[in-house]
Order: sequence, then C-alpha cells, then structure tokens
Amino acid sequence: MIKNEIALGIDIGGTNTAFGLVNSEGKCLFKKSVSTKSDEPAENLFYRIFEVINSKMDSEESLSGIGIGAPNANYYKGTIENPPNLKWEFVNVAETVSNFSSAPVFVTNDANAAALGEMKFGAARNMKNFIEITLGTGLGSGIIVNGELVYGHDGFAGEMGHTIIERNGRECGCGRKGCLETYVSATGIVRTYFYLLSKTMNKSSLKAKPRSEITAKDIYEAALKDDPVALESFDITAKYLGMACADAVGYFSPEAFILFGGLAGAGDLLTVPAKRYMEENIMNIFKGKVEIILSELNSGDAAILGAAALVFHNAGNKTTEAAVNI
Amino acid sequence: MIKNEIALGIDIGGTNTAFGLVNSEGKCLFKKSVSTKSDEPAENLFYRIFEVINSKMDSEESLSGIGIGAPNANYYKGTIENPPNLKWEFVNVAETVSNFSSAPVFVTNDANAAALGEMKFGAARNMKNFIEITLGTGLGSGIIVNGELVYGHDGFAGEMGHTIIERNGRECGCGRKGCLETYVSATGIVRTYFYLLSKTMNKSSLKAKPRSEITAKDIYEAALKDDPVALESFDITAKYLGMACADAVGYFSPEAFILFGGLAGAGDLLTVPAKRYMEENIMNIFKGKVEIILSELNSGDAAILGAAALVFHNAGNKTTEAAVNI
Repeated sequence: MIKNEIALGIDIGGTNTAFGLVNSEGKCLFKKSVSTKSDEPAENLFYRIFEVINSKMDSEESLSGIGIGAPNANYYKGTIENPPNLKWEFVNVAETVSNFSSAPVFVTNDANAAALGEMKFGAARNMKNFIEITLGTGLGSGIIVNGELVYGHDGFAGEMGHTIIERNGRECGCGRKGCLETYVSATGIVRTYFYLLSKTMNKSSLKAKPRSEITAKDIYEAALKDDPVALESFDITAKYLGMACADAVGYFSPEAFILFGGLAGAGDLLTVPAKRYMEENIMNIFKGKVEIILSELNSGDAAILGAAALVFHNAGNKTTEAAVNI
Repeated sequence: MIKNEIALGIDIGGTNTAFGLVNSEGKCLFKKSVSTKSDEPAENLFYRIFEVINSKMDSEESLSGIGIGAPNANYYKGTIENPPNLKWEFVNVAETVSNFSSAPVFVTNDANAAALGEMKFGAARNMKNFIEITLGTGLGSGIIVNGELVYGHDGFAGEMGHTIIERNGRECGCGRKGCLETYVSATGIVRTYFYLLSKTMNKSSLKAKPRSEITAKDIYEAALKDDPVALESFDITAKYLGMACADAVGYFSPEAFILFGGLAGAGDLLTVPAKRYMEENIMNIFKGKVEIILSELNSGDAAILGAAALVFHNAGNKTTEAAVNI
C-alpha cells in the first residue's frame, strides 16, 4: 500500500451523515457533516457529498476506494435494506455511487466499520480476534475472527445485541424479549434505572425528572455524585454485559471486547465491573485471558475512520473481489 | 492437490483410539481401533499406531500429513491439555509424533475435526458458514466462518455447549450452571426425562428402570412407541437446541447447523422441532434462512475422516504454516 492513498469514508446516520478523506495512516485530512434527508432519494445525499469531495481533491488525485458504514448495510450485496431510522426501503449503494465515482465501493454496517477502524487505527492494532461493541441507542457488534470480519452467509452476522440474555425478559424493538440491547445500551440503562426506582426505596437525585427526559448521560453524572440508584444501574448494566461477554468468549475466544460509542464514555464505571462479572461467569479455561477495554478511536473522527478502514482493509488483504464494482 | 495423497486420521477417545488412512476423496482405505490406555505415556499409543500404519504402507508411499482429533486439543500449539476422560495432563502431540513420522502434524478437538470432515466430505460440501454440533455425552461444536474454523486467540473457541441457555439452570461438569450441554446431549435428555417424571403424572414405559441404567437410546426407543414422557423429553431438548441455535445465528448467520453423534441418530424427532423452535426465537432478518440438518458423514468412519480432513483442509488452503513441524 502506498503512503498517499486516500479513502473516502462515509457514515450514514438517521439524522446526519459524516464523511471525510482519510489517508492510510488514519489521518483525517478533511471532514464534514450534512443532513441525511432520507425522505429524499439516496442519490441526492451522494450528490451533495461528491459535490464537496470533488471540490476538495486535485484533478490528478484519485480515491483508492469509498467505504460506507450504514445501518442494515450488506457487505456482500453493496446494499442498505430496511434500515431503522431511515426512510429508504432499499438502496443499491454501489450502483448509486457509481454515478459519481469510479472508485471501488465497500459497504458495511456501522459496528463492523468501527471494528475495522479499531483494528487498523485503534486499540486493536495488534489483535486478530476481538469483538467491537458499539453502545448507542442499541448495541451493535463487529466481530473479528482471525483478522477478518464475521459476515455470515447472508452478510448480516454480528448481532450480539439481539442474543437473548434474559429469557422472557424486556421487550425489544426487534419484536422479541430479553435481547442484550434492552439491558446494555443507552436506552437499556435508562430502563434499568426506572426499574430500580420502582423496586427499591433508595432516593435518587433524578427522581423528579420524567422518564422521557432522562438520558444515560444523566445517570452517569448522577453516578459520579454517588447517587445510589444510578450506581446500581451501572452495576446491573455491567453485569448483563459481563454475562454476555462470558458467553461470547465460549464461541469466539477473543483477545478483548472493545467498547465504543456514547455509553462507553462511562469508562471504568462500566468496564471494571463488566470485567469482574465476565470473569465470574466465564469457563475456567478462559479465565484471565480476555480484556474489556475502551476504544482508542478519536470519537470525533471514529465513524469516518471506520468507514475508511473498510477500504484499506480490503486493499491490504488483496481480497478486492469483495468490492462491488458496477 | 494430487489424487493419490493419503492422510493418516487419528481420533483419540477416552477408551478407544480409531485411526485410518484416507485419500483426498474421502475414501477410508484402511482403519483400525486400539485401546487408548491413557494410564501409559501417550508415546506408547503412537508407537502402537505407527507399528500398524508402517506395515500397511509401501516403502515408496508417504503420508501427506497426520490429522489428530482429541479432547482439549490445541490447534495452535499442537498439544492436548487436561483432557476430560484421559489421564494425560499435557501431551505435546506434534513432538511425540515426530518420533515416528516426518509428515506434518495437525491437531484439533473432535468437534472441529468433525466440522472439517463435514465440509470436505459430508453435508457441508458447498457451505462456507455453518456450525457442526456433536451430540454425545456432552455437546461439542466446530464453527466454520468463511470456510475456516474459528479457533479464537488461544485455540479453544467453539464452546457452544458451554454457553448459558438457562440462567441458574442445571449444574454442569464445567462448574457453572445452565450450560447448553446440560440440556442438549445424551446425558442432558436423560436429566430432562427424570425431571419430567418428577413433574408430571404421565406414565412412562421406562419408569421402573433406575436412572443410572437409562440412556438416551432408551428414551429414543420409548418415544418411537409414543411414550409421552419420552416424547416430551425430545420436545424439550429440541426447544433448548432451537433457542441456542437462534442465538448462534445472531452471532454467525450460518447456512446450517449440522448435527452429528449419538443423539443426532434421533433424526426428525430432534431436527424438525428444533428447526421450529429456532424459527420461533430467531430475529426476523434471519427467518427461513437457516437449516438444521443431519451429518452425512458415514458414522463408522466419521471421526477418522474428520481428523484426515484437517490435513487436506490445510494443504488445500496452502496455510501450512499452521502445521506444527518439529
């Protein structure tokens, strides 16, 4: 790989889409965010992105590739299918982008992109087996086995957030009950907090606030001030995370779980008890072998770096047959 | 790979060790079984095996490699470590075998060997993502992602039998509670049968037999004669298997689960309800995409074929750096 290769990384979110130019050393040379506007055709979004990008690149420069992270993106097909929080039903991303650039296009979901970014530029630089866990509104995961993402036969593997951690547990947006993300995510910890308010007699500084206004960040800040309900909310969240990691270790025997995204900002408050609960629940042969650590991707650039890593990873592996060229 | 390549496949069990010569088309040219005798040094076992093998091969013939399936075998290190049911604490298999042959030696656990055998010679010939489940005294699993076994960073990945399917459930030999294999295995179904005898008023034809004498085979035969407790035992076993498969699909999105070993002999009695329960518990995006089927490896040769497949798989992939050459 030559040093001056440049990838365009695009992270499509429900409200905003971040994009930027990244070199092969993980330096973000330029970045910008625009409204996604999924009530318009996806082509309009890419038109606006390339209008900016083309103005930023010299005529003799060319993109090594375009990496796109998006919800419900399918790596094999280069498509986005029924994404939550977006109004598009189906987008053939590779085909749409080919109207604006001839560079190879790689598409994957945001958690997979974060995992590749972590392996290329972050805390997993020396790892070949790890699981990236993204803790936002839900829980996403990007699973790396032997240096490669686990896509499964249909491209949708890696749904750790929808493995069942509690039989007949909390209702999940996916229509089932007890999914990990109903306990371990920004919304999961708020549910736990309100459960504890109903169950215990403990006083909480947030008690007066209506549920719809309380965020994971409020609970984090209350926990820092020793609010007992907030502290217990973190402990329960860490317990479910630790139990889930213990199970995942049985399948994958990873070197580490790497936490990324909003709730990961709680740092030690989450990782220290999660590690303890994982050790309590893990098989003997795996004890003391697996870490739970925080992402080392710069949070401001992380999504763009992840999407760009998709380009460098595939180029580096010379498995460019995976690139969807129209 | 040339047609006349021959691998020696060795399957080390607690009581007996089966071994045989297998060509690259999966034909078992010769096979034999000897007592494992793990109260003697492992070297004695290999001495006895090679005494037989050397007498069966022409002087100008040579082995392409030696594949060994054994409990708690470590692919990366070429070792067997604290195997259950064997008296050896630690065997450096690759080193020991080098006293008898200069062919490359590959070592893995029996479930992983079965998975490779299935992919090379059995029901998974056209699959790159599937999970082989071996149902014996316990539940073993060999997980194939993108055509390769999942070993994890320490070589011990693939412990589906020890993922927790029931929080605070049945005590497991591993020291924890609620492991899948305490419900789904030959011993698991016997436990379920006795649980049902304690819980229901249903009559069972096996009721008079003491627990220590009842086997999974007895329950299978009773189920064929419409014994209600035996039938319910299979239904509960299938339910736990189906729920576990639904969770595993979230991680791996495999094309199929392939059942192998004693309890898989129950066939439709297990696969049909397990598939139904999996569909009931699976995420919408995976519905109707994943099969639960039976192994197509000839059960008499299966363990030897699996061990031999370890040689052909590594040769075929040209990743022979994994061979442990002393």
